[in-house]
Order: sequence, then structure tokens, then C-alpha cells
Amino acid sequence: MLTMQDALARLTAYWTAQGCLTVQPMNTEVGAGTLNPATFLRVLGPEPWRVVYVEPSVRPDDSRYGENPNRLQTHTQLQVILKPDPGNPQELYLGSLEAIGIDVKAHDVRFVEDNWASPALGAWGLGWEVWLDGLEITQFTYFQQAGGLNLDPVSVEITYGIERILMALQDKTHFKNIEYADGISYGEVFGQSEYEMSRYYLDDADVAANRQLLEIYAAEAQRLIDAGLPVPAHTYVLKCSQAFNVLDSRGAVSTADRAAEFARMRRLAGDVARLWVARRDEQGHPLGLVEALPPATAPAAPVAKSSPRTLIFEIGTEELPPSEARATRDHVRRALTEGLAGTRLEHDEVRVFATPRRLVALVPSVAAQEPDHVRQVRGPKVGAPAKAVEGFARGQGVTVDDLAVGEFNGAQHHMVEKQEAGGPAAEVLAPVLAKVVSGLRAAKNMRWNDPQLSFSRPIRWLTALWGDDVVPVAVGTLSAGRQTRLLRTAAEPTVQIASAETFMETLALAGIVADPEDRHDLIVTGAQDEVYPEGRIDVAGEAALIDQITYLVEAPTPLLGTFDESYLSLPDAVLTTVMRKHQRYLPVRSADGSLLPMFVTVANGPVDVELVRTGNEAVLRARYEDAAFFYRADRNTPLPDMRERLTRLTFTDKLGSMADRSARIAALATSLAESLGLSSATLGRAARLVKFDLGSQLVTEMTSLAGVMARDYALHAGEPRDVAQAVYEAELPRNTGDDLPASIPGALLSLADRLDLVAGLAATVGLPTGSSDPFAVRRAVLGLLAVHRAHPALSGLSLLDGLRAAAAQQPVPVAPAVIDSAAEFLARRLEQALTEEGRPVDRVRAAIPHYARPSVVDTLLSQLDTLVGNPDFVAVAAAIQRARRILPPDTSAGYDPAVLTEPAELALHEAVTGVKADYGPDLVAFTAAVEPLVEPLTRFFDEVFVMAEEPALRAARLGLLATVRDLGAGLLDWPELRL
Amino acid sequence: MLTMQDALARLTAYWTAQGCLTVQPMNTEVGAGTLNPATFLRVLGPEPWRVVYVEPSVRPDDSRYGENPNRLQTHTQLQVILKPDPGNPQELYLGSLEAIGIDVKAHDVRFVEDNWASPALGAWGLGWEVWLDGLEITQFTYFQQAGGLNLDPVSVEITYGIERILMALQDKTHFKNIEYADGISYGEVFGQSEYEMSRYYLDDADVAANRQLLEIYAAEAQRLIDAGLPVPAHTYVLKCSQAFNVLDSRGAVSTADRAAEFARMRRLAGDVARLWVARRDEQGHPLGLVEALPPATAPAAPVAKSSPRTLIFEIGTEELPPSEARATRDHVRRALTEGLAGTRLEHDEVRVFATPRRLVALVPSVAAQEPDHVRQVRGPKVGAPAKAVEGFARGQGVTVDDLAVGEFNGAQHHMVEKQEAGGPAAEVLAPVLAKVVSGLRAAKNMRWNDPQLSFSRPIRWLTALWGDDVVPVAVGTLSAGRQTRLLRTAAEPTVQIASAETFMETLALAGIVADPEDRHDLIVTGAQDEVYPEGRIDVAGEAALIDQITYLVEAPTPLLGTFDESYLSLPDAVLTTVMRKHQRYLPVRSADGSLLPMFVTVANGPVDVELVRTGNEAVLRARYEDAAFFYRADRNTPLPDMRERLTRLTFTDKLGSMADRSARIAALATSLAESLGLSSATLGRAARLVKFDLGSQLVTEMTSLAGVMARDYALHAGEPRDVAQAVYEAELPRNTGDDLPASIPGALLSLADRLDLVAGLAATVGLPTGSSDPFAVRRAVLGLLAVHRAHPALSGLSLLDGLRAAAAQQPVPVAPAVIDSAAEFLARRLEQALTEEGRPVDRVRAAIPHYARPSVVDTLLSQLDTLVGNPDFVAVAAAIQRARRILPPDTSAGYDPAVLTEPAELALHEAVTGVKADYGPDLVAFTAAVEPLVEPLTRFFDEVFVMAEEPALRAARLGLLATVRDLGAGLLDWPELRL
Repeated sequence: MLTMQDALARLTAYWTAQGCLTVQPMNTEVGAGTLNPATFLRVLGPEPWRVVYVEPSVRPDDSRYGENPNRLQTHTQLQVILKPDPGNPQELYLGSLEAIGIDVKAHDVRFVEDNWASPALGAWGLGWEVWLDGLEITQFTYFQQAGGLNLDPVSVEITYGIERILMALQDKTHFKNIEYADGISYGEVFGQSEYEMSRYYLDDADVAANRQLLEIYAAEAQRLIDAGLPVPAHTYVLKCSQAFNVLDSRGAVSTADRAAEFARMRRLAGDVARLWVARRDEQGHPLGLVEALPPATAPAAPVAKSSPRTLIFEIGTEELPPSEARATRDHVRRALTEGLAGTRLEHDEVRVFATPRRLVALVPSVAAQEPDHVRQVRGPKVGAPAKAVEGFARGQGVTVDDLAVGEFNGAQHHMVEKQEAGGPAAEVLAPVLAKVVSGLRAAKNMRWNDPQLSFSRPIRWLTALWGDDVVPVAVGTLSAGRQTRLLRTAAEPTVQIASAETFMETLALAGIVADPEDRHDLIVTGAQDEVYPEGRIDVAGEAALIDQITYLVEAPTPLLGTFDESYLSLPDAVLTTVMRKHQRYLPVRSADGSLLPMFVTVANGPVDVELVRTGNEAVLRARYEDAAFFYRADRNTPLPDMRERLTRLTFTDKLGSMADRSARIAALATSLAESLGLSSATLGRAARLVKFDLGSQLVTEMTSLAGVMARDYALHAGEPRDVAQAVYEAELPRNTGDDLPASIPGALLSLADRLDLVAGLAATVGLPTGSSDPFAVRRAVLGLLAVHRAHPALSGLSLLDGLRAAAAQQPVPVAPAVIDSAAEFLARRLEQALTEEGRPVDRVRAAIPHYARPSVVDTLLSQLDTLVGNPDFVAVAAAIQRARRILPPDTSAGYDPAVLTEPAELALHEAVTGVKADYGPDLVAFTAAVEPLVEPLTRFFDEVFVMAEEPALRAARLGLLATVRDLGAGLLDWPELRL
Repeated sequence: MLTMQDALARLTAYWTAQGCLTVQPMNTEVGAGTLNPATFLRVLGPEPWRVVYVEPSVRPDDSRYGENPNRLQTHTQLQVILKPDPGNPQELYLGSLEAIGIDVKAHDVRFVEDNWASPALGAWGLGWEVWLDGLEITQFTYFQQAGGLNLDPVSVEITYGIERILMALQDKTHFKNIEYADGISYGEVFGQSEYEMSRYYLDDADVAANRQLLEIYAAEAQRLIDAGLPVPAHTYVLKCSQAFNVLDSRGAVSTADRAAEFARMRRLAGDVARLWVARRDEQGHPLGLVEALPPATAPAAPVAKSSPRTLIFEIGTEELPPSEARATRDHVRRALTEGLAGTRLEHDEVRVFATPRRLVALVPSVAAQEPDHVRQVRGPKVGAPAKAVEGFARGQGVTVDDLAVGEFNGAQHHMVEKQEAGGPAAEVLAPVLAKVVSGLRAAKNMRWNDPQLSFSRPIRWLTALWGDDVVPVAVGTLSAGRQTRLLRTAAEPTVQIASAETFMETLALAGIVADPEDRHDLIVTGAQDEVYPEGRIDVAGEAALIDQITYLVEAPTPLLGTFDESYLSLPDAVLTTVMRKHQRYLPVRSADGSLLPMFVTVANGPVDVELVRTGNEAVLRARYEDAAFFYRADRNTPLPDMRERLTRLTFTDKLGSMADRSARIAALATSLAESLGLSSATLGRAARLVKFDLGSQLVTEMTSLAGVMARDYALHAGEPRDVAQAVYEAELPRNTGDDLPASIPGALLSLADRLDLVAGLAATVGLPTGSSDPFAVRRAVLGLLAVHRAHPALSGLSLLDGLRAAAAQQPVPVAPAVIDSAAEFLARRLEQALTEEGRPVDRVRAAIPHYARPSVVDTLLSQLDTLVGNPDFVAVAAAIQRARRILPPDTSAGYDPAVLTEPAELALHEAVTGVKADYGPDLVAFTAAVEPLVEPLTRFFDEVFVMAEEPALRAARLGLLATVRDLGAGLLDWPELRL
């Protein structure tokens, strides 16, 4: 059996043979090999660097006392850096797997999108998790930035998760059973340390001491930066990171702390990086400079042909993220269609296919040659001065006599007509295809060893054939050829294509299904076939997942796996979250929709099905075992104990623990209910439980299950169903479009939760600006609006009052100005939401003063939908608007009726006096109430001159008008309404 | 070329093949691989453990900005632990050298005594430095104790110094030029880090921050110990150690700090070790238990023979320290002689030879058989009760009739005579030889894989032959045979010996010179031959070194090396200190005694002379290059700058810097000189310079050169010769038997130095007790005495006054009681010294009240040597003693002469009145002065009854006697003197 130490030695030897240095792990605790200066510093700057090293990586947060079979506070990474990108790092990587005895042809090895970012290091890169039969064994990243600096050249970072790989290779279900060396297990070597360090990180580390350490380390890092010493400064940044992680695992880091610490570390890491680069510059780059690859030269143009032929253009990439593959397919179709339109080559319709590794454009019947062509060059208008005409002719190299006259945009111009020969297909196509490639852009782009190109993932080859001929495309360092690449595991991974017409067939014969629709169908039917007859796949329900899978494989090989029925005792949400989110497995259901103990995974290519099935089953088993472990432990924990754990979870440093927060939520929900007459025993009990599941182990692991687990655990503990439901609903909505609380107790808790969050954070860290929303305040505000709008029964509740009540409960003072800002923020979000729902902007703005009761705004907007067609409403509204225009702003509604003289004004006075203003914020009632004013108002405006010279009269008329104006007070912001 | 990373990989692979685990370096800074828990914790307890790992070892103190070719703040250790001792670790180790291409047959590989101890870890072990052609490449230790716990089983620790090995293999003169990997140098990979971390450790580390860190780490370690978690506690002990080392390299650790920190770390490490052992016990020793080797069974006894034969008994060891080999040789001779005397085997004289690897006893003509023998068993005396006689007979298994009578110690006893047959040689010899082995003891003993034995180094084989027969010795796990081991590099390292008579010849043929006298002669003549004709070896002057070398090799191969003449510009003391102390090379001198640029090293066995010479020359070159580098730098540094550096050297935390201390020395020496009228310009200038060379780089490296370098640098800087000499002499004596200051300025500075040290340390850390003397206070006191005694011109100086003056200058208050204690200490040391010099104790005690002026004591003792034979002195002395016995202690010397009546008393009165007491502390003058009293005193004591009844008369007589008594006051403690 390959032992762990042998595996490390073999991988090291493999990479050493690839020209890598071997260095030692960092001699201060690091969370990952990336932090070792052999990566963090060496990826910076222009010097080449290849290195391989082992890095025991410390993650205090992953401490499990050695009990969890898959989670360790210290796991072993093997880290490889290739700088610059050698052009074939994926292939080199697969070679390393072979070096430790993994038959990559038999297994399902996949590159699954995973973009890596370390905010604390100002670092990011694009790349993949590498999956071995569903098990993540490696992180593979093209490092784009570190310490906030763009990396040029780009480094390839390959990080192996050694324990996982060894568990898979040795078929072990607990890391402790890994055979570390001959006859000695991992547990025997590291078990005690795993337990004791877990104790330290979870229970025994002194919080005050670690806080002090963090400050000392940060100060020392800063001093060393000031002294111009990046190397020791970097070690202190690492020590900061470790001290922070210890505090975090001890539950002593609030959200605000985290943000502040990350900002500090990012700043320090950035300074370190800049200093390092400067030092290496000063030293003249002792390791030399990476030479940029030269631009490709295009192949020779073929001899011109005469008959139309098919054009095939393949852009070969490393595995694209599904969304990018889809978007790029559309882009290529559009760009190629437009590009061809710019030529005079006749052709049939452009079709484009996409897989994770290629974009294939297929254009049948592309003419061999553009037709010859007369090009008209426009000169001065006819009648222009002779000098201008002469100048034009000279410029075109002709005499004035050679000029013709033509019509351009309806005007007569002098012009030259030039005879142009049509180009042969290959030569005409080449620049068009090159432009398609250079124009590729993704939502997030990266660079690799090609100095010209930038895209979602590296572009590694171009195949361009028009009939039998290579189209002489050259772009960046790539020149097109007739060679394509098949599956990496194929007997011959690259083949020569004789002619464009045989290209698709070659792919198909190699098992590659280029057309996504075909792949989709193959996946759906293949999956169904696998599970038939007991099970079925919820194709509609899993549409998003299936769509994703379609772009994860080129040669879909659905295969069925099973898991132990006992896991079905876990909540469905747990089972499906793991399957979908973590593993991209399709859940299998029985006819009645209940989950069956099986799943479908879709491998890529002709794998050893038994091997791959077994591997995937093991992965799922491990994940479910984890979940089941937590679930059992949680269910054995009394609810009060779980809730008690909230005292150890910091919400933010200034806003206390999660226990404080849940107490505030409970108090607020209760008082809101009282004020609305909506108190209930259900609410009372649910308020005492709210958020308790944040203290559960399962939710700690899978935070997306908050609320869902609360309901489960509450029911299990014997709580009434409506109480359990309310505790669940308190977490709703978890994101835009999520379910909303259906019950009043649930809705009140949900509102109280979000009011508390907004009031507290607005007062301490401020409201979100721009697109950043680290504390999810924006999401909370949207939740407030959505819940309120969904519950007419709560229309009496003012969110502004709620905010004030929440503010009064905060452990910090909340200034009135803060509440004003929060209210303003709420109003703006509501306005935006309503506008996005298609409500006319003017009406939204008119109704928005009621933002504090969003359901009232909804009602007003609905009424307006009708009333804007009601002449009575329109007339009164217009009158109110007119009154507001005429009236000086400070005009009050009182007037002396005795001064009035004109019949029209007397009539209006009478009508106004008759209106009973008891219609509340109800435009229908308002319209009914003011209907008697319509006629007198028309008359008044027709007949009465408001600004009479006599002051008393004028005052009375203004007062009368102000009275009319005030009938609309508290209803709408009338001037906003467009009538 | 074998690159450094290849060497690490090969060594790791070699040891892995020997069953070692591979683990990773520690992820917190450690000073050595020993600190990694894979050593420190795993050597504890009864579980087996074999491990190999690389450990980048951080020594802040070795920071040299990467400039020094051989010194790095981080060097690479490869660490191997073999637990239990496999029995052949040296051979395994030599195999590892072969694995990296070192031909151990061609090179001179030596195991040179080096006992390792880490006070801070409560750890020690015995073993060697391994030398490769004079270069220390490995530390090889049998680990005996860790964390204050005895280790059972013992572990073998092998620590390779990788950079040194690679520099030698690659023939590089600077570590930066080591080829780390193909085409990439060590400097390119680590150079910048070496520079920057040096900056941190030497210049930029924040002292206050690191002090804080030290305290936090220590507190956290303690908390974790209290929590029962040895693993995290250990990491914090390591962090303590690093923080301490950083403070040390910043010059911020005083002697007192150091002692206190070591004590704390030792305590913490001890607690960690005990906890670890307890935890492993609780866990039932997951790795199992080491099984003790079974005791050996003796070979079958041979058939009895008839003729006398030679006995050869060889005890084969691993390399013994020279002093132990020598002492053991004597022990074996004694033990074997005694053992044989306890048998009745006739034999010739016992001769014993010793080499580093064997003790060989040779006894010619050992009889084949003991003679038969009648043994007399003594019973009761003749005349004893019959019952007793019967009882005796019964006890002896005979009847009363069988008893005989014999004389024992002149009395007649009943007795039994037993006939005893003599034993055959082999059987008689076996227990005798076994007892010789089990009785072996060294000054410092160790254990290895033999549960029964304990010795200076492991005993690995026994060869015991009497003639052709193996003597059936079995002791511990060893049983004797006829096999011996030759040089490890021999073609056949083990051979069978046919008979004892051929043994010595076999060794001799293999090149092993068993007899130390022969080896000594071979070394001396061989060395002389090598250097002839230009040079000569100072055989007498280098006697101690030659004696040491004699016991470092079995097969001496003297060979000549040269060094560049330019190094001769270094002071002789530097050159010879390096040669003798560090390298055990014999310096070569010309006829006029000046050093020649060559040396003789003595290799062991038939090496490749050219290779070994080159290697040794490179080592010496590196050492001289180091020294020359420092020497040049120092000579380019103005003396005031060097002295300025003393402000950065802490003396002790309470007693200020070394600059403070040298200022105090200067002030004290000056004031002492003034009080004695010995001021001079020389002293004035020397006082301003004193101790400046502690600020030099060379003395920082080689502290034994303090003073010597001061003289050199002072002369170089143009100081007058007598000033330079005085600054040198200020450091004398450096140890017992060292030169003393010859000049008065030198002596005054020397005294002032020591007075300051004693006064300050007595007040702060106390005087030394027992054998421990961490601050060398005892040595300073001995220096005070020696210097004072050497200078009659200083006899007027009271060291007690000097102590008081020194005390007054200390930055801390020095209580009078402290000065009293110091004075008492001084007196006791003087008393001890004089006694050890052979002075009679009574006289020493009589003169010791003058301890504050030791030279006065010397004078008094010299006078006493003569005066104890002078009847006048004796008479007066006896009278004084008698007076002191008679007189009540408070009797004063005044009396009324008018009361006296008797002629004898009147005569004495007259004589006493005539004595002029101006003789000072001079017994000769005293004797001359009191001579007239002799006769009157005799008469007085004969005739006068002192205790007259009449009170006035009695008072006068007592007063008269008191006056006589007081003539001796201030001279001696008279009652102590035996007359």
C-alpha cells in the first residue's frame, strides 16, 4: 500500500523532476501553503520560480478533537508553484496523479470551477477544485493578484489535500486510519496532537492573551514594513493571521472585528508585497526575468480554391465555468456572424457549440472566394469649390476627369469607384476568426502565459479549417492548425483533422458531445435510465443543476450511486443541500416525491464505472456521516443548551453576543405584537427559542440550514408545530425570492430580527454603500419590506416606529440621525423595488412617503392603477397640485369665509366645508369624499382671480385653496404624480 | 553535482528505508531539530520511535546579514531519532554518508567527544561531534534525559548540519554558493531572507514587544500545563525560547535574566514532559512498548586444557573520550589484577592498552587450572560450649568427630577442612572478566540498549580468549567471542581470532596501535617527520593536546596541512586557539618559536591523504577567514567605537550595561591608586579603555581572547605599550593558575574589576553556594586574593575597603550585611587556599584576621615559619594565650601600678611599660620588641597569684596581664596558634 509518507516523497520527486525546488514548510503557523513566502512573495515580480513543498496547514476552526473522520485542525498540503505558467500545467498535474498510482483513465478526474480569493492577503486567482470521483483532492489556481498587486507573469498554484487523497487511495473512512508509514497509522503519529490542539483552539486558548498577541504582531509587522524589511514583516503578518484564527475558533471575533482585521491584514500584506517587489528590483532580480512568449506567426495561406466548403473554428480552453461556457457560446455566435457579415463571403448559418473545454463554430458552405467588388469612395458634394474637388482627386491618385458622381444620403457627391478583387476564403476568414478570439471576455477574466489574451480560463489551442485547408489564424501566442484535442484520457489525446467536414464526426467518435442540448438530453435520459424503475429525477425541479452539469462534462456518463438508507433519517434539506451544492449529484425520488437512497452523478468520458461509483459513494458517505454526526449530537442536545451556546457567539463586538441579539429580537417581536393586538402563545414561545439553532453543530457547518434545522430540532424536542414553524419563518426570507413567513408570529419575528440588525449595524458600522454589503444590511432591509408587504394584517405597523423601538434596545446609543438615515435607506430600497416591479416612477414617488408601511404603499399604488382613469380623482388631484403651485409654501389652511365674495368661491367654500376628511390613507375613500368638490373647483379656477389686490380677500382665497390642498395631506406626495 | 535538495532527499530516503517515519519541520521557530515534538516528546516514555525530518533551525545569535561564509541565522538540520538504540547506530550513520556519496574509507571520519546538554530543556546526552576531515558535520548523541526525566529506552539522536556538509561536498567557500538545486544557488533562494532576518534579530526587533511576547507565551504554556495539554504547552515553550533568543541577539538579556529564563523554561519543559508521559500512559502507549534485550547467555565452556596460555580480554566500545579511555585503562588493570588475585590461577603481569574504541587486557601465562586446595572453615574457639561445637559441625554437614583444630589469629579454634578442586582457566576467568565489565564507570555515565550496563559510551563487543578457547563471559546483553572489530573502514571490519597469542598481532596488522605510548610516539615522530626540516612541534608545550590526540585515534596518520601565510598576520593567540581548541591541530613553529603557516592533524587509519589534507585545510581556512574577517573589522574600528558598543551589552539587569561596569572599574581603580599613592598616566589611560574589546567582533566570537585582543587592538591604535599591557592585565587571572598582572596599573584594574563584580553580584544575586558559580564570583574572589598576594606594593590596600568602595558605586544599594558576607567569603577562600598550599591550619587561622590584606597574611605566615622555633616568640605568645585564658573577656588594659606589691609584678610592670608597640603587622619586629618581657613574664606566672582576694590588687594584676595581652592585638588570632 502506498503510505502517506511515500506519497509525499513521490509527489515531491515528481515535481522536482519538473524543475521545482524543494523547500521546507513555514516555521510559523500558516493556514495554507499559499502563505509560505515561497509562494506569497515569490509569485510577485518578474522572476521565474518553480517550487514544491509540504505545508502542514493549521485551521483552528476545523478543530474537531480528532473525532470527525474528515476534519482536522492541521491537514497536510502539498504545494506546487509554476511560474510562469508552463502552458500545460493541467497535463503536468495529471502526470503527478499517475506518479502516485492514480489511473486517471479509469477514474473520473474533473476540473470544477473554483475561484480562490483571500481578502486578508489581497490575493485572488481563477481555477478549479480537482475532483477525483467526486472528491475534492486539489485546488488548482492561476494566481492573478497577491498583496493587491497584479501578477505578471502569472503563477500556477497547485495545492494537494494529502489526507483526502490518501483516504481515497487507501480506502479509509477516518483520517486516523491512514497508513502513514509501513505499519504506523496517521492517528498513532498525529492523533494526540490533533486532540490537544483542538482543545486549545476550541476551549483553552486564552482570548485576552491572543488579542494581545494579535496587536503585538501587527505592530511588529508595521514597524518592519517601515524599516523596509518585507521578509520578517511577512512572518508577522502570518502570526497575525494565526492569532486571529485562534480568536475566531474561540468564538471571540465579531463580524465587525473580522472586517477590521481583514482590512488591517490586507493593508499589511499589500505593504509587504510592494516592499518585496521593490527589494527584488533593487537587487536586479537575482533569479533572472521570465521572457514573454513571442507572438505566433500564422501558417502559410493555402492555395485558393473554387468550391464552397465548411468552416470549422474550434477555440480550445481549459475547463470553463458553466455560466461562462454558455455565455461565450452566444458571444462567439454573435461575433462570428458579425465578422462574416463584414466580409463578402457567402455562407450558411453560423452554429456554435460549447463544452467545458471548447467552443466550436460550424459554418457550412462558406464560399471559396469573395466576389469582386466596386468600392465607391465619397468626395465633396457636387458644387463644392473646385479646389476641394481637385484635392480629393489627388488624394485618391486620380485626375478630376476620372471622378464620377453618385448619391450618398440623398445628396450628389463626387466619387471614385475602385475595382476590388474578392479575397480567398482562408485569407478573408483569418482576421475575422482572430478577432473572435481576441474579443473573448468573461464576467471575470484572467491572464496566463499568453501576453495578449485574457479570458475566463486559458485558451490553449485553435483549430481552424475551411474545407481541407487550415485558416491561417494567429492571435497572441496561438496559431491555428488542423489538430484538435480529444478527452485527456483518450488513447490519442490529440488528432489531426483532414477536413472541416469531418471535424464534428471526429469529436463524436471520441465520445465528445459538442452540442449542449444533446448533452442535456443525454444526461436527463441517462440519469432516468439509471434510476428506472424505482426512481425518478425531478427534471424540472433540478433544472438549474442539470444545466450546470451539462457544462461540467464533454462526454456525459451518468452513473448511479447509492447511500445507506439510514441517512434518509436526515432532513431532506440536509441531504439535498449536500448533493446539489457540494457534489452536483442529482437526487433521486420515488413516485411520491420522497427521496430514495441514491443519486446520479455524471462522470466525464469512459471511466471505470465501478471504481467511480465506489469513489463517489464514499465521498457522499463521508459527507453524510459528518452531517449525521452533527445531527445526532444536536438532537441529543436540549434546546436550552443549544440556545445557551449563543452566549459564546459574538454578533459584533459592540452589539454583544448572538444570545443578546436573540433576546432583543424576542422582546421587540413581543412588543410589536402587543401594539398591534397580535400577541399569541405561539409567538411567546417562538420568541423564547428564536435563533437557537445557530448553536447547533449542523448549522455551524451548513449555515444555509439555519431555520430549517430550528424547525426540525424544535419538533423533535416536542414543541408545537406552529411554534416550530414560527422559529423557522423567523429566518425568512434568506435571500431575494425566498419564501416569506406565512404566519403572523413568524412574520413578527422576521421583522424584529431585521429591525434589530439594521438599527444596531447602522449605529455601529454604518449603512452599506456601493455594492459592498459585508453585514447583509441591505438584504435585511429588503426582507423587512417584503415581509411587511406580504402581510396586510401588519399594515398598521410602521417600520420607522419599529426601527425606533429596536434602536432603543441596542447596547449602544443610536442617534436620531442614524434612524433618519436608516429610514431614508429603507425608503430608497422600497422605491427601487417598486420601480423594478414595473410600477410607474411618478406614482411610486407619490406614494413613497408611506414607505414606513410598505403595504400601505402597495395599496395606494393599486388604487392609483384605477384612479388615474377616474376624472373625479384626476380633477381633485390636479386641483391639489395647482393649489400647491400657487400657494406660497407657508400658507396655512385657515381663512375668513366672510371676506369671500364671488359665487364660485363661495360654492367652493361650501363644498370644502362639506368634505369629511376621515378617509385615512385610502385613495378610493378619498375620491368618494372629495367628489363633491370637482365641479366647484373647476368653476373656482375658471372664475376667481386668487391673487386679488385687496389683501384680506387674497388671504381668504389663498386660505381656501390651502384647505383644498390639505384635503390631500398625508395621502400622496401630490406634485410627483403625473396626471 | 549532488545538490542540497537532492542530499536532503537521499538522506531522508536512506533513513526511511531504515524504518524511520518522515515528518515535517515544526511550524513555530525552533533553534534545533531536538525541539520538534517528534524528538522532544517522542524520546520520552517506553514507546518505540524512528523518525527522520528536516528542521530549519533558527539561531538569532548567529545572524550575520548573510555576510559570514559559514554562519547563518537559519541553518538546515536533518534530524534522525532511533528509539531504542538499534545497537549499531554509528554503522547506520556511516551508511547514510555513503548514501550521499561520501567515501568514508577515503575520508577521515571521526567521532569526537561532545556531550550535549540543554539546560533550558532539562535535557542531556553523551555522544560526539562527527568530523569529516576536521569539519564538524553531525552531532551524534545518546539522549539520556529530557524535561528532567530519565529516558528509558535511550534514543539515538543524529543531527546533520546540511549546509556544512554541502559546502564540503561541493567545495564551496561561502554558503551562498551552495548549489541548492540544479542551476540555482542557496544564496538565490535564501539570501534575502538571511539578510533581512539578520536585520530583525540584530537591529530591528522591538525589545519591549519581544519581552511582552515572552511573558504571554510563558503564561500560556503554564495555563496549558494546568489544563493537562502537553502538546500545545510545548509549542508555547518553544515560542518562549524563540522570544528569548531574539532578546538575546538584541543584547537585551542580562546574565541574571538568562538564568531566570532558563530556570523558567526548564520548569515548563519538565512539566510538559511529565504530562506527556502521563498522557501516553493513560492511552496505553499506542505505539507499543520497546522490549528490553534479553541477557546474553555465555558460550559453552571449553574442554579443560593443561598448559598455561595467554589471556586476551578486549572490551569494545564506541569512541571513548580521551580522559575516560585513559582512566578506564587504569581501572581495568586494577580490577583485573584484583580479580585474578581472587583466583588461584597463576599468571604473569596484567597489561592493559586503550584506544578510543577498545580496552585490551593482556595476561601472559595464565595457568590452565587452579591448583587443588584445602579450605579451612573456622568454628568456635576451643573450650566453647559443646552445644556450639555441635551446632557448627552440623552446619558444616560433618560430625563433631570430623572437626580438626587450627590456629586463627593466635587462638585455637575448631575447624573443618574442605578439599576443593581447582577450576579450569576459562571457567575461573569468566566471572572475573564479567565483573571487570560490569564494574566499569566513568566520570559521566550513560545508558544505551543494554539494560544492565552503564558507561561513558556504549560497550558493543567482548573478545575473551584464553589460548585457543573463548572464555565464556556473559554480561548484560553481551557474550564474549573470538571475534574482534578492526577499523570501521577496513576491508573486513570484523575478524575471527584463532588464539589469544595472535590477537595483538592481528590488531597491529590492521594498523591499530593498541598501546597509547606507542601511539604517542608515533604521533610525535610522525608529526615531526611531516614538518621537518623547516618546522618543529613544541612537544612539551603541546603535551596536553598530544595526549588528547593519542586517545582520539587508533591508527595515527599524522599529515601536514598548510594555510595561507596571510593569516599569520592574525595574533598567535587567535591562530593557536583555533588550532588547539577547535581543531586539535598541532601548531608548527620555526626554530625561533614563531608560528609557521602549517599544522599537523592526525587522521585515523589509512585515509586518502590528499583528500583529507584538502578537507582539513578548507576547514581551517574557513575558521581563519572568519577570524580574519572579524579581526580586520575590529582593527578598522576606533577604540572609542568599540567601547561605545559596551552600552549595548547588558551586564545584569540590575547592574547596568558593560559600559557602566567598565566605568565603575575605571573609577574604582583610579581611587584605589590615589589612596595608595600609585596614580599614573598609564593607569589613567588604561582605565578609560578597560574592557573595550568586549565590543569587538572577535572577542564576541571567542571570549577566551578578551584582554589579549584588547592589547593587540590598543597597540594597533597607537596606545603606549604599557597602557595596552595594563588593559590586557586587567583581565588576569582568567582562571586558576593563569598569569597574574605584572604591572601595578594592571593589578589595580584587575582588582577593581573583581571588586566591582563581587560587590554588585553579592548584592543582587547573592554569593555562590555549593559547587555552582554561574556568575563566576568565586573565580573573581580567587583572583582578588591572587593579585593582592602577588603585589607587595599593594599590601596597604584592604580588599574590604575596596569592597566598600565598590559597593558605594553600584547602581543598587549594597547593605552592610552584604559586605560582611562577601568579606567572610573572601576570608574563607583565603583560608582554604592557604591550607591547600600546605600552610599549617593553626597558623593560617591565626593570621586570617588579616584576610583583607592577603599579602600581609602571607608575610605573617612566612614569619611564623621561623618564629615558631624562636623561644622568645613562643614565650610571649604563650603568655598572651595564657593571659587570654585567664582574663575575663571584658578586662581592659588599664591598671593602677601603685597597687602592685610583689617584685615579680613590679618587674613585669616595668618591662611592659618599656615596650614600644610600633611593630605593625610584623611578627619579627614584634618579637624584637617584646623580647624584654620574656624573663619577667616567666617570673610573674611563677610567683604571682593573679586572683588576689583584695579587689583592687586583683584588678591591677588583671589590668597588667591585659596590657601584656594587648601587645599582641592586631597581629594574630593568638588562641588559634599551636605552640
